Amino acid sequence: MRDRDTIAAAIDAIPGPDATAGDAARALQARLTKPAGALGRLEELHAWAAGVRGDAAPGLDRAVIVVAAADHGVAEDGVSAYPRDVTWQMVANFLAGGAAVNVLAAHAGATVRVVDAGVLRDSGDARVLVAKTRGGSDNMTRGPAMSRDEAETLLARGIEFARTEAAAGADAIALGDMGIGNTTAAAAITAVIAGVPPGVAAGRGTGIDDAAFAVKVAAIERAIAINTPDATDGLDVLAKVGGFEIAFLAGVAIGAAGARVPVVLDGYPTTAAALIAATVAPASAAFMLASHMSAEPGHRIALAHLGLRPLLDLDMRLGEGSGAALALSLLSAALRIPREMATFDSAGVSRSDGETQPEA
Amino acid sequence: MRDRDTIAAAIDAIPGPDATAGDAARALQARLTKPAGALGRLEELHAWAAGVRGDAAPGLDRAVIVVAAADHGVAEDGVSAYPRDVTWQMVANFLAGGAAVNVLAAHAGATVRVVDAGVLRDSGDARVLVAKTRGGSDNMTRGPAMSRDEAETLLARGIEFARTEAAAGADAIALGDMGIGNTTAAAAITAVIAGVPPGVAAGRGTGIDDAAFAVKVAAIERAIAINTPDATDGLDVLAKVGGFEIAFLAGVAIGAAGARVPVVLDGYPTTAAALIAATVAPASAAFMLASHMSAEPGHRIALAHLGLRPLLDLDMRLGEGSGAALALSLLSAALRIPREMATFDSAGVSRSDGETQPEA
Repeated sequence: MRDRDTIAAAIDAIPGPDATAGDAARALQARLTKPAGALGRLEELHAWAAGVRGDAAPGLDRAVIVVAAADHGVAEDGVSAYPRDVTWQMVANFLAGGAAVNVLAAHAGATVRVVDAGVLRDSGDARVLVAKTRGGSDNMTRGPAMSRDEAETLLARGIEFARTEAAAGADAIALGDMGIGNTTAAAAITAVIAGVPPGVAAGRGTGIDDAAFAVKVAAIERAIAINTPDATDGLDVLAKVGGFEIAFLAGVAIGAAGARVPVVLDGYPTTAAALIAATVAPASAAFMLASHMSAEPGHRIALAHLGLRPLLDLDMRLGEGSGAALALSLLSAALRIPREMATFDSAGVSRSDGETQPEA
Repeated sequence: MRDRDTIAAAIDAIPGPDATAGDAARALQARLTKPAGALGRLEELHAWAAGVRGDAAPGLDRAVIVVAAADHGVAEDGVSAYPRDVTWQMVANFLAGGAAVNVLAAHAGATVRVVDAGVLRDSGDARVLVAKTRGGSDNMTRGPAMSRDEAETLLARGIEFARTEAAAGADAIALGDMGIGNTTAAAAITAVIAGVPPGVAAGRGTGIDDAAFAVKVAAIERAIAINTPDATDGLDVLAKVGGFEIAFLAGVAIGAAGARVPVVLDGYPTTAAALIAATVAPASAAFMLASHMSAEPGHRIALAHLGLRPLLDLDMRLGEGSGAALALSLLSAALRIPREMATFDSAGVSRSDGETQPEA
């Protein structure tokens, strides 16, 4: 009941983007020493971030990548190329700094936070934020992956995580995921919410063959047939065919929106979390940035449903927040432009209308 | 004559990519804690750079962005939205650190070098490398933009610049351009070398209207009709319908290839320089990286002719090396992966074949 109140209050707390700050950002861009619009999507990123932050020239100094990990009951059906132990092994790898997201976060100047949202084996490392209700969701092909109460608890914990990070000064939160079997959950969520067949929503994940792909599609079909999730009820979809890390990340997206912090999506599982967030709290979508188009075919469908156009298209399909880390670096570049470039007036550069400014 | 010898020797000095280093890079990728191929184009970038550098895990510590500036005789016909004074004004802006390329270079950790390859007004600033034979090319609609001797001199100076930078430790050289009117030269070069009509090769540059676009296309048609450049002779195309900064940058591309230094292209003018380089020295193309797809429609044609697929597509159309700076940042991220990520063995992460490695 307390979780339900937290969620309801968080939904109500999401503002609209600040149009005044967005307009001020565009006006600022027009004064910089370059043809209008010549920096393309970098200029759009700046105006979007200005609207999100309510600041015409926001900085990006304390970006956080939250990597939420959990196990999935459906993994026992053989939907992944990897054994379930890889989930906890990769948690250890994130903590040791040896995963791709660690390297790419360091490159972007971002901090990685590791969350156990439902891993079967406890890490025992004090650096892990333990948010789980239990380890491992139930197999969605036999019933709901989790109870609605659990889904609400994880969502509320994600909301609280985002608020805490925002209060500590986070100026962007990127979503990362780890969970063997979680592209199956992502595809099930996308199939339900975007209304496409499982065979269209599903992909090869970390690299399965034709036989395993058929198993994966059949598992999603069975999960949807058995659970009959209600596409208009995000929590129902989440509980029935989602996963624990997806629940937590959906909460992070809602909480970050309420705190005017940009939310940077990664691949398919984090975008499935965004679909849940946008179904539960439609106003949250305006605070999301799509970092990249993953090699998972359903990712395109999920992003289109959210109305988001990805920044990058690099054939990546790793998750962990790896693509989001690259997008954070681009966002950082875009936000430095209005803070560091000269204006036509200050630099004495002539405008296109021929009006020459005094030389600096 | 000396310039001609320099060019001939530089062409002969270009090696093939180091296939052994490329294979070693791919083998290294297969041991890192991620599914094979999951980092997509980042992995391809690493293997490519390994082949270029002859090093299985090359670093990227001293990237240089060379911004070559020059004026164009054809600008007097009204092919640009900006007056010619903007060329020297922007040189001053590069030196003051106020241009987009300065900000994006700083973001990428790269150094900007400003070259006067043919600006009408001398900068007088000692930080400018003065490589010019004179200020301002001739109007290509009335005859060749420059003599073949001048084209050879600029090309040789670009070759020498690249060698000097490589000897000083540059591990990547990105090409940037500044020159009011230079997308007209870029379109003329592309029309000739790729064999497409001027109306297809030309675009809106920094933002011209329909009337100016018609003037631009007519200027290119006239320049080609009057000069009849030989598409198989890169120096002939360069001298007749090119520009001074394009000549210098073509030389940089050839010289960098000979020194096994990756060459990062930017937008249309730098890619036109790459077309000249690849026509004069076909082996140089293997050392080039296409940073982004600019908003100039002919840029796609030029990249396709070079067999290059751009990393980014952000609707940018600024030049200066601004897109190349963003690509340098991505290249840096890609090259950190093999140097900093854990391997399956070191991290104790299970492989997809189920073979569990001992825990670290």
